[in-house]
Amino acid sequence: MSGSTLGLLFTVTSFGESHGPGIGCVIDGCPPGLALDCADIQTELDRRKPGTSAHVTQRKEPDTVEILSGVFEGRTTGTPIALLIRNQDQRSQDYGKIVDTFRPGHADYTYWHKYGIRDYRGGGRSSARETAARVAAGAVAKKWLRERYGIEIRGYMSQLGDIAIPFKGWEHVGNNPFFAPDDAIVPQLEAYMEQIRRERDSVGARIEVVAEGVPVGWGEPVYDRLDADIAYAMMSINAVKGVEIGDGFASVAQRGSFHGDELTPEGFASNHAGGVLGGISTGQAIRVSLALKPTSSIPQPRRSIDKQGQAVEMSTTGRHDPCVGLRATPIAEAMLALVLIDHALRHRAQCADVAVDSRPIPGRIG
Amino acid sequence: MSGSTLGLLFTVTSFGESHGPGIGCVIDGCPPGLALDCADIQTELDRRKPGTSAHVTQRKEPDTVEILSGVFEGRTTGTPIALLIRNQDQRSQDYGKIVDTFRPGHADYTYWHKYGIRDYRGGGRSSARETAARVAAGAVAKKWLRERYGIEIRGYMSQLGDIAIPFKGWEHVGNNPFFAPDDAIVPQLEAYMEQIRRERDSVGARIEVVAEGVPVGWGEPVYDRLDADIAYAMMSINAVKGVEIGDGFASVAQRGSFHGDELTPEGFASNHAGGVLGGISTGQAIRVSLALKPTSSIPQPRRSIDKQGQAVEMSTTGRHDPCVGLRATPIAEAMLALVLIDHALRHRAQCADVAVDSRPIPGRIG
Amino acid sequence: MSGSTLGLLFTVTSFGESHGPGIGCVIDGCPPGLALDCADIQTELDRRKPGTSAHVTQRKEPDTVEILSGVFEGRTTGTPIALLIRNQDQRSQDYGKIVDTFRPGHADYTYWHKYGIRDYRGGGRSSARETAARVAAGAVAKKWLRERYGIEIRGYMSQLGDIAIPFKGWEHVGNNPFFAPDDAIVPQLEAYMEQIRRERDSVGARIEVVAEGVPVGWGEPVYDRLDADIAYAMMSINAVKGVEIGDGFASVAQRGSFHGDELTPEGFASNHAGGVLGGISTGQAIRVSLALKPTSSIPQPRRSIDKQGQAVEMSTTGRHDPCVGLRATPIAEAMLALVLIDHALRHRAQCADVAVDSRPIPGRIG
Amino acid sequence: MSGSTLGLLFTVTSFGESHGPGIGCVIDGCPPGLALDCADIQTELDRRKPGTSAHVTQRKEPDTVEILSGVFEGRTTGTPIALLIRNQDQRSQDYGKIVDTFRPGHADYTYWHKYGIRDYRGGGRSSARETAARVAAGAVAKKWLRERYGIEIRGYMSQLGDIAIPFKGWEHVGNNPFFAPDDAIVPQLEAYMEQIRRERDSVGARIEVVAEGVPVGWGEPVYDRLDADIAYAMMSINAVKGVEIGDGFASVAQRGSFHGDELTPEGFASNHAGGVLGGISTGQAIRVSLALKPTSSIPQPRRSIDKQGQAVEMSTTGRHDPCVGLRATPIAEAMLALVLIDHALRHRAQCADVAVDSRPIPGRIG
Repeated sequence: MSGSTLGLLFTVTSFGESHGPGIGCVIDGCPPGLALDCADIQTELDRRKPGTSAHVTQRKEPDTVEILSGVFEGRTTGTPIALLIRNQDQRSQDYGKIVDTFRPGHADYTYWHKYGIRDYRGGGRSSARETAARVAAGAVAKKWLRERYGIEIRGYMSQLGDIAIPFKGWEHVGNNPFFAPDDAIVPQLEAYMEQIRRERDSVGARIEVVAEGVPVGWGEPVYDRLDADIAYAMMSINAVKGVEIGDGFASVAQRGSFHGDELTPEGFASNHAGGVLGGISTGQAIRVSLALKPTSSIPQPRRSIDKQGQAVEMSTTGRHDPCVGLRATPIAEAMLALVLIDHALRHRAQCADVAVDSRPIPGRIG
Repeated sequence: MSGSTLGLLFTVTSFGESHGPGIGCVIDGCPPGLALDCADIQTELDRRKPGTSAHVTQRKEPDTVEILSGVFEGRTTGTPIALLIRNQDQRSQDYGKIVDTFRPGHADYTYWHKYGIRDYRGGGRSSARETAARVAAGAVAKKWLRERYGIEIRGYMSQLGDIAIPFKGWEHVGNNPFFAPDDAIVPQLEAYMEQIRRERDSVGARIEVVAEGVPVGWGEPVYDRLDADIAYAMMSINAVKGVEIGDGFASVAQRGSFHGDELTPEGFASNHAGGVLGGISTGQAIRVSLALKPTSSIPQPRRSIDKQGQAVEMSTTGRHDPCVGLRATPIAEAMLALVLIDHALRHRAQCADVAVDSRPIPGRIG
Repeated sequence: MSGSTLGLLFTVTSFGESHGPGIGCVIDGCPPGLALDCADIQTELDRRKPGTSAHVTQRKEPDTVEILSGVFEGRTTGTPIALLIRNQDQRSQDYGKIVDTFRPGHADYTYWHKYGIRDYRGGGRSSARETAARVAAGAVAKKWLRERYGIEIRGYMSQLGDIAIPFKGWEHVGNNPFFAPDDAIVPQLEAYMEQIRRERDSVGARIEVVAEGVPVGWGEPVYDRLDADIAYAMMSINAVKGVEIGDGFASVAQRGSFHGDELTPEGFASNHAGGVLGGISTGQAIRVSLALKPTSSIPQPRRSIDKQGQAVEMSTTGRHDPCVGLRATPIAEAMLALVLIDHALRHRAQCADVAVDSRPIPGRIG
Repeated sequence: MSGSTLGLLFTVTSFGESHGPGIGCVIDGCPPGLALDCADIQTELDRRKPGTSAHVTQRKEPDTVEILSGVFEGRTTGTPIALLIRNQDQRSQDYGKIVDTFRPGHADYTYWHKYGIRDYRGGGRSSARETAARVAAGAVAKKWLRERYGIEIRGYMSQLGDIAIPFKGWEHVGNNPFFAPDDAIVPQLEAYMEQIRRERDSVGARIEVVAEGVPVGWGEPVYDRLDADIAYAMMSINAVKGVEIGDGFASVAQRGSFHGDELTPEGFASNHAGGVLGGISTGQAIRVSLALKPTSSIPQPRRSIDKQGQAVEMSTTGRHDPCVGLRATPIAEAMLALVLIDHALRHRAQCADVAVDSRPIPGRIG
């Protein structure tokens, strides 16, 4: 596995810079026979594209995906699927000032010292636009998981800055640009964002993503455990600084008598584990939580240096998100889908012949 | 990469069950010429072995490592290094009752449904003893990183159950079985553990691990980012339910004006990022935090089921840790070392010819 | 490593079918700073494209490559390089008859039984056009190897059907469509091809490819040996049925006193080994030989079956090569380049610090 | 995949030097539930071990294998299987003279320049004894393939030096130390070996290995094709200089009308392809041929250099094989088994849901 490939069997190799000709990916190992067309992928892309909300980057990108290979007469062939999304709106002039300086909180400085060359336009490869390729690939994975196993993967925002967002129901999530599971709190969130914008600042967000319907037995012990692969996939999302499975950091202060999920013939009595034990899925809902840091590019003066090491002051203008977390939900869902399909294939590679007498218990009681 | 191999260039393939003949690993890709003997590895193993504290499992394991290959005349040859640790004290009779039942919070149930067969003795492969192999491999990595780059990797416990442990200094950490960085608090921790033990329960722990001296430029963008690989390695440690880099989940409520680490000619002004930006090391201290859940096996009656799906009540006896976190510090250090050496080698593979005019700035001011 | 990725550090993930929208690849791990533009790649592509000879498929493909990412201001950035070649001339009507039948000697039958679906147009993914992606990627590798190490990779045809072609000099190779190293024999080869064409048949070819200037030390013992990776890369070329390194099958009847290349201070006394010993390069010329089978699609009636298992008779019309070997030389060169660059990077990952007192001896005496 | 691991799903990571404490391997990804004990593996090892013939190295190695993990109550658990073979007879004194010199035809010179350090005793890692680990792993693969799919993998010697050995029947192969498929020719081979020995020289050998019963559909297009993986595995065997599939190099001079295997409802009319088309198995017998070079270490004076680059003359004494090919047959069978099991698992990972209406045709007519 090299730096731009995710997965072992269902692999995604992505490419593209923010202001290059295009971004995309090559998916390899997709099972044949899956009905797939551009619409399946476009639907997911549209959930994340710029311009869908007053609070996200005002860059007008149609983000139209083209399938270059791997699909024939509407079905996957089993051979590599290449997806390409051309970049259209690339207002390079927004970035002209930063050729020789490094934006604090961005990868400019690290890229420069690693590669000795960097594509400064719009953040090059570290830009959030690269995530479009992941969402595209995730759309394929989501579809297969749903059709083959009935797995549902959904996410929502549980915290915006210092505002905790209660979970009122999945039906709320699609109604607002925050992916907030509570319609009633949306005006408060909108007002908060306006306040942050006026302060020329930014805030972070916490995202939850849940997979329901995952059978017991996916994942491998020790390394490449399901939870380890999930942590890896989530931490690879730009701006993520923390990942939890189940009760996560709250587990630290819990007692074993509370945290350990008891098993009963009717199902698991609780789900503090978040659906993974010993690195393997239990059949319970897989619950993952991510922490996204506040946007690094803000229209306030910030101290930095230039390529010669001289002190400079920078102030970002142009298009920026006051909270990158607003777009993270579809990306997190995509990453979870990509990890799960890879483990689905691995499991059946090694354990297709396993037959266990007793039935698994339900993921939860009732 | 299959389920039991970590890394791309410096790979560690581990094997062994808790009550099998032995555990061990094969390290491949180690640079040649590193001075290495059993003592280098034994030192790290002794930091974690059972019996070093009244609070950890009273299983008397010498945990003596044998080097089977890859070292000649005291130096690594560049060929695979096989390490073997024989299991001695395997009191199988402690586990006889659980052949047909599943311990809540353990991998018993998931292994059974995945493999249709499981080694029930002492947790088989999911046992904490498997970590000895990781610590052994980590010892090799630590040594090379220290000698080649002057990198220091150290960890400590920052929270035990609901007790927050302040950082008073590294010099405290080696003085107590908790790896607590504060001598003064140790009696309180000891009393707390006694209380938990009397209640026949368990608690979790939070561990911090820090790598200092890592040059700028290690890591790769998008996938296999340094932070993603760290998250993956840490989440692969048994009982870990959460991983943070830098400010982690605290970043959510921070402002961008606060979180973004400014750059000055004298060094970075802060380190909220935790040493990684855009997936690449910045030259700052790499700070990682892990959440370990409370021990699953406790001497209280717990509800579970047997292989036929019938309700049973279980109560674990025998040897158990009231807090698995007590041993996690050396393991976390080992995992961070393994990720870093792999990235060191990857970086020089791709970027050995890169020459950047300006010098990197120091990791921090002063 | 999944089915469509070659390499460990310098990886090439290819995609595309013969009659899909396009073919291409994503190169990851390319060292940054290499000067690269479309012309560098186009030059290699033009050596292999259809229409350059009366003896190869009369399909008019411009085979124009587009660089979608990974290059900025004329130099590689170190991030993935995506190359795309759009398919233009796709005369689908040539293939309409074979939807339900399987061409003998082609992958039709195997694809059908593996995937349950196949893109029958022009051979889908198993078509020789897919090799354009390899040649494109190989062009990048060739350039870096030449500029960084002075390595020269060249190939030629040494046998066409039953005609042995003597090696008269490299200067002949570019003068004829056979890549034959002997101008004088070309009329005989042309006449032979005409005869084969009149007989509505096809023949195979033997290709030699040589890499000069490879330093000693590239390759790894046991698995992923340099010779093993070369064999793998060559056997992955469509129509290849045999690979030899050095004296190959002739070694069987040789004596050890003859085959073993002696070492002298002036250099190696011979090169029966073909430049690889113990899986590692010796500094001698790396000599590889491939056997390509005769074209499977010929305009003679051949027995086959249809999807229902019924006997049918098939006769291929349309565009076909009477010898696929005519195009194999640039492809073989590209594959050797891809293997060598991968090993160059692996070697410096593990052995960058190795310093040996004595100098390597020259690849050959004089 | 690093230098000492073979396979993607059923991986084998080997370790050990000829004169170190031991050699072995870790097998990961083995399906659970396979009945396995030391005898299964020992049987294969005994077919290759030194001392079974007057013509192979007189080193008395019991080559006893120990299973360290991954097997419980006689069945594989699905977790890594570690196999260890301790080295007993290590007559180091045989090698004392060569500390500072390089034996022609061996990896001594290349290892020295790659690693700057080498274990000179008995060839270190490049010794033929390392193959014991492969044969051990291959035994596990062979068993699973046989029990799960009824696949039979057998090999024989088809040429010794310049003596062609006709195939008279499988029943002959186990009767003589050559693995020759013709009892009648054995005296001639014995006399030939004596003559070579008197001349203090060595010869090469050609080995054929056949897998029958492989279903259609194993393998992947483009890269990691079944034939490419086979070539890779075979070329990784020490002393192999050439690999052919099916008619191999003879295909070059064949006509397409002859080489292309026709399909009929009763089966394939021929098998020039050797069981692989488009990188995927056809259901026909998979036929592979290897060329082994003559033993490099012979008791004749040979020119070489020492570490300082000075000319020396060397003459090997001690234990050596006049033909390493005598032991290659079980090793080649093991390698083919390892490649096939890996592809079996990959195929079912991606294509477990594929259902094709028509039945595959038999591998051959009658």
